[in-house]
Amino acid sequence: MGAPAAPLAFSQPADAKTLEQGLELTPRFNADGLLAAVATHADTGEVLMLAWMNAEALRLTLQTREAHYFSRSRAALWRKGETSGQIQSVVEIRIDCDQDAVWLKVRPAGDGGACHTGARSCFYRIIEDGALRRAD
Amino acid sequence: MGAPAAPLAFSQPADAKTLEQGLELTPRFNADGLLAAVATHADTGEVLMLAWMNAEALRLTLQTREAHYFSRSRAALWRKGETSGQIQSVVEIRIDCDQDAVWLKVRPAGDGGACHTGARSCFYRIIEDGALRRAD
Repeated sequence: MGAPAAPLAFSQPADAKTLEQGLELTPRFNADGLLAAVATHADTGEVLMLAWMNAEALRLTLQTREAHYFSRSRAALWRKGETSGQIQSVVEIRIDCDQDAVWLKVRPAGDGGACHTGARSCFYRIIEDGALRRAD
Repeated sequence: MGAPAAPLAFSQPADAKTLEQGLELTPRFNADGLLAAVATHADTGEVLMLAWMNAEALRLTLQTREAHYFSRSRAALWRKGETSGQIQSVVEIRIDCDQDAVWLKVRPAGDGGACHTGARSCFYRIIEDGALRRAD
């Protein structure tokens, strides 16, 4: 093994215009130190899940090209798929205008899904007439 | 004009299994009374934006089939496109396993975009080698 990758340092944006239209990565974590992360399937475009990243999860995702999140319920870093096998290879990662959310295009390994319920996507229920129905 | 639509009452889930696998809409708003909302373009699948909804925004979105959000910066209900013309017609709305995030498939009116920077999507920058580049 080589030397570990140098840690990615995240800095503060100079101003609102730089934040929203510049080319510097200056992620804005919320009061809990988190930003929202949307994962879509790189091939189908389907939204698989919405989760959270702290700075360490974002750094690890960028450095390893495997999605890492922060589990709010367990209050711990979470390498997606570590137990389920649903490792997410990151094909592309984008950040939004105010840099408080990221969009990951991923390919899930294992059974190809992302949800612990067994559904492929966490968003497997459609809201209709005030109730839910399964999409599949 | 007819009578206003009856307000949608959101109830609490009976238990975790009902929450995650049942067919009752029991949205879980966070401590600030919000849930995350991801909007994708109904035709291209592109992720357009990530925003927030309070109960009123979710109700109005379901009742009018136009996306309403809650602006955290203005601390106010926000009918997307009211000033920009980028009204979002909701083609489908889904909720995730633990019912704290929704996924809207929308068709934006006006110039067809969703971002106040003039980009079509708020996620118009790709993170690469620790910096950003425009996707278009």
